[in-house]
Amino acid sequence: MNSRGFLTERQIQVLRLRRRGLSQEEVAEMLGTTRANVSILEKRAMQNIDRALATLKQWKMIQAPVVVRVPEGTDLFALPGIIFREADARGLKLPVNSIDILAGLKEIAPHLTRRRLIERSFDMYITEDGEIYLEETGGSCASRRDMA
Amino acid sequence: MNSRGFLTERQIQVLRLRRRGLSQEEVAEMLGTTRANVSILEKRAMQNIDRALATLKQWKMIQAPVVVRVPEGTDLFALPGIIFREADARGLKLPVNSIDILAGLKEIAPHLTRRRLIERSFDMYITEDGEIYLEETGGSCASRRDMA
Repeated sequence: MNSRGFLTERQIQVLRLRRRGLSQEEVAEMLGTTRANVSILEKRAMQNIDRALATLKQWKMIQAPVVVRVPEGTDLFALPGIIFREADARGLKLPVNSIDILAGLKEIAPHLTRRRLIERSFDMYITEDGEIYLEETGGSCASRRDMA
Repeated sequence: MNSRGFLTERQIQVLRLRRRGLSQEEVAEMLGTTRANVSILEKRAMQNIDRALATLKQWKMIQAPVVVRVPEGTDLFALPGIIFREADARGLKLPVNSIDILAGLKEIAPHLTRRRLIERSFDMYITEDGEIYLEETGGSCASRRDMA
């Protein structure tokens, strides 16, 4: 289908037949292989798709014009100001407002805050489209929410 | 940044610094490596991003609810009818009209037609969002156009 992607022709065949409602056993019979093999092909294909999505997220975060490190102990209500100052410094007008930022944070990562305090340090990435991604400074958490 | 993606931490570092306007030599110095190595890291990273995009295209094509094989010699003006019949058969209302389809084909793959004739056989994929992807039956051409 497209040799540049991470999916092999075989994986594509399996996903297509599965999407048409065939069982793994039926697909195995059509392709002359075992059900176990179809199961592996399908699993690897879905992993590749997940990793492709994660890669584009990495790329969006790399390109994000506004990245702010928010230290532990920051007053939650100070956060929008920090972000808008950073955007202003770069001459950017973000398509989000204070409420978007606070509501977004509460929604995608409620465990980072406690009442009005940031309890765990994180980096906040805001893309030009107004998408918000978070990454815990120490860890690997990365969530996002479409604010546009 | 996100361990599930195809970009390594090192590749992410390089892309970030490059996007801030640093030269490959400056990045090499910051990371304590050679310019040649930075160049390789950057190239591999961009290849991974391209392949991630190609993978999502593969996935969209797999999920496309309408796929029509258009044989060589087909009258160009018969094409929209063929596609709408296929969509109807699946109970789908496509967000494109006849002109969109013909203009889209002419734009993304002018070499497939000659006056009113399809000169080379291809498969046409239409996603639920009205995106159109083409794939030559024999070959590897795959283009797309956002019709929404």
